[in-house]
Amino acid sequence: MNGTKFVHIVDTTLRDGSHAVAHQFTREQIKAIAGGLDAAGVEYIEVSHGDGLAGSSYNYGWAALSDEEMLKAAAEVIKKAKLTVLLLPGIGTREDLKLAIECGAKAVRVATHVTEADIAEQHIGMAKKMGLEAFGFLMMAHTAPPEKVVEQALLFESYGADYIYIADSAGAMLPEDVKARVGAVVEKVKVPVGFHAHNNLTLATANCLAALEAGATFLDGACRGLGAGAGNAQTEALIGVLDKAGYRTGVDFYKIMDVAEDVVEPIMQRPQVVRNAPLMLGYAGVYSSFLLHTYRAAEKFGLDPRDILVELGRKGMVGGQEDMIVDVAYQLAKQREGN
Amino acid sequence: MNGTKFVHIVDTTLRDGSHAVAHQFTREQIKAIAGGLDAAGVEYIEVSHGDGLAGSSYNYGWAALSDEEMLKAAAEVIKKAKLTVLLLPGIGTREDLKLAIECGAKAVRVATHVTEADIAEQHIGMAKKMGLEAFGFLMMAHTAPPEKVVEQALLFESYGADYIYIADSAGAMLPEDVKARVGAVVEKVKVPVGFHAHNNLTLATANCLAALEAGATFLDGACRGLGAGAGNAQTEALIGVLDKAGYRTGVDFYKIMDVAEDVVEPIMQRPQVVRNAPLMLGYAGVYSSFLLHTYRAAEKFGLDPRDILVELGRKGMVGGQEDMIVDVAYQLAKQREGN
Repeated sequence: MNGTKFVHIVDTTLRDGSHAVAHQFTREQIKAIAGGLDAAGVEYIEVSHGDGLAGSSYNYGWAALSDEEMLKAAAEVIKKAKLTVLLLPGIGTREDLKLAIECGAKAVRVATHVTEADIAEQHIGMAKKMGLEAFGFLMMAHTAPPEKVVEQALLFESYGADYIYIADSAGAMLPEDVKARVGAVVEKVKVPVGFHAHNNLTLATANCLAALEAGATFLDGACRGLGAGAGNAQTEALIGVLDKAGYRTGVDFYKIMDVAEDVVEPIMQRPQVVRNAPLMLGYAGVYSSFLLHTYRAAEKFGLDPRDILVELGRKGMVGGQEDMIVDVAYQLAKQREGN
Repeated sequence: MNGTKFVHIVDTTLRDGSHAVAHQFTREQIKAIAGGLDAAGVEYIEVSHGDGLAGSSYNYGWAALSDEEMLKAAAEVIKKAKLTVLLLPGIGTREDLKLAIECGAKAVRVATHVTEADIAEQHIGMAKKMGLEAFGFLMMAHTAPPEKVVEQALLFESYGADYIYIADSAGAMLPEDVKARVGAVVEKVKVPVGFHAHNNLTLATANCLAALEAGATFLDGACRGLGAGAGNAQTEALIGVLDKAGYRTGVDFYKIMDVAEDVVEPIMQRPQVVRNAPLMLGYAGVYSSFLLHTYRAAEKFGLDPRDILVELGRKGMVGGQEDMIVDVAYQLAKQREGN
């Protein structure tokens, strides 16, 4: 048992969940969810377009509300929690961050690909200068070995990040993968470490437990798991499991359950089920943005799209390399002919 | 990594999943699912009413088909797998088992409450005499400490059981609870040990991994998790995770995914989501049959039903003690008045 160990909870229903509602959260929904999370005792409430500040666009999906409208709606109802925003350098700018602060943001998660923390130096620096809590957030961490993750975490720390997050963005990690990466970072950085799970392999909650065993003290969840792909660790289940395992979170289990079932579930466009597509993405370890291109390439070359996904994962393809999918499919098809 | 370790897979879509379709599987559905599981390489295919042979009744729910019709439908399409039945002494009889053998059953899982293995001696003995593989299946194993589970497993072994199963019937175990029980049994019995998970705490797949780490070599799953309450470990996800973790199962990942999505999902009455009711049952560690009585008692005494469930779990109430719920609620309400 873990006695009185405290775990800080970041709920990302209103950010990662934005993907699952095609970025169409309304003012009323944001107020109901943020108000419920706050009353339940959640410490950090993340509110942003799924792809962070300024994500609303042709490329990433137009949102129903502007960043300003979303943040102000949440800020109106939050009494104790820290309103948190996501910022991906390259999408959001320092101007967007200034606006977020004016709208009530108290913390920012600056997210980069696991090998690219260096693009976040200015954003972390500015966040700290303006009095925000700053998280360095390393995405797709399964694609890098532990020592690389440590190197990048140390960069974030050197820029002044208050916390380092390891994100299993594709839901591709086994508990042992989580322990290896979180454990290595905990050993080398001085700041607290967190973990962001996706449920593609049905392991999100278990991977959160693995992260705690390896020394993490921050965890992400989303009510009913609402998030990209297979969704995140289901906040209310996570709280129940942490209660049972002897951790403290400050979150009331009954109240967070009620937010999930009475407020979040009714606005979900579909249940957060692990169907084959997200399962395959987790198995292969690739981004969901690859899926459509993969189906097209599979049809063109007469392949099973799953074989292409596995090959893309094996090659360590990352977001932005979608045009490589046709090449990979072509090579696979040629190999098949040769056999 | 676990190299070449082999894990035996029992798929229980057509038995535990019977609960989730109100025992209304049709001949066509049984043939499509059993045929798909067999072609995918599943070693044991369990087919029975949710409460086992002769479960079709007023008490346990009338099934669309008789045991004979269900088993014959499955036997017609199974080429390699072992057709498996569930038998709960007290519901099914030795006559029912004879009939099952005539219909093609090759294995039986004789299931008792975790403290009542002794009621299964005759059934295990008869199964062995008639040439069946016999599993001793200990239900609600979270309610007994490891040493009690070991004692009961040894009883099953002494009756001639070929395998011992630990079942987390209420989905109440954390990975550490699974390891403690499975590990203790593996240490003391000579026969192989298996684990049957439920997903109430979103830990089904992780608990399967924990069981393997503790020495289990048999695991249960159900396609899309179809099963009682929050459902079972999702077979296709489990196979993907075991592949990734380096175990062999003989089950083709793509084929089992296709069975789940193309055959099982279309006949599901609702998606297998961890809503609040199953989550609370797992948290409290009580049977789903308590739920309706608990809601009634909560209304009568003006209590939160969740407080009653937690108290029932604390007292270790088991199936059949539903009439005690009112007493527990009455005591709780009196305590509240006293405060």
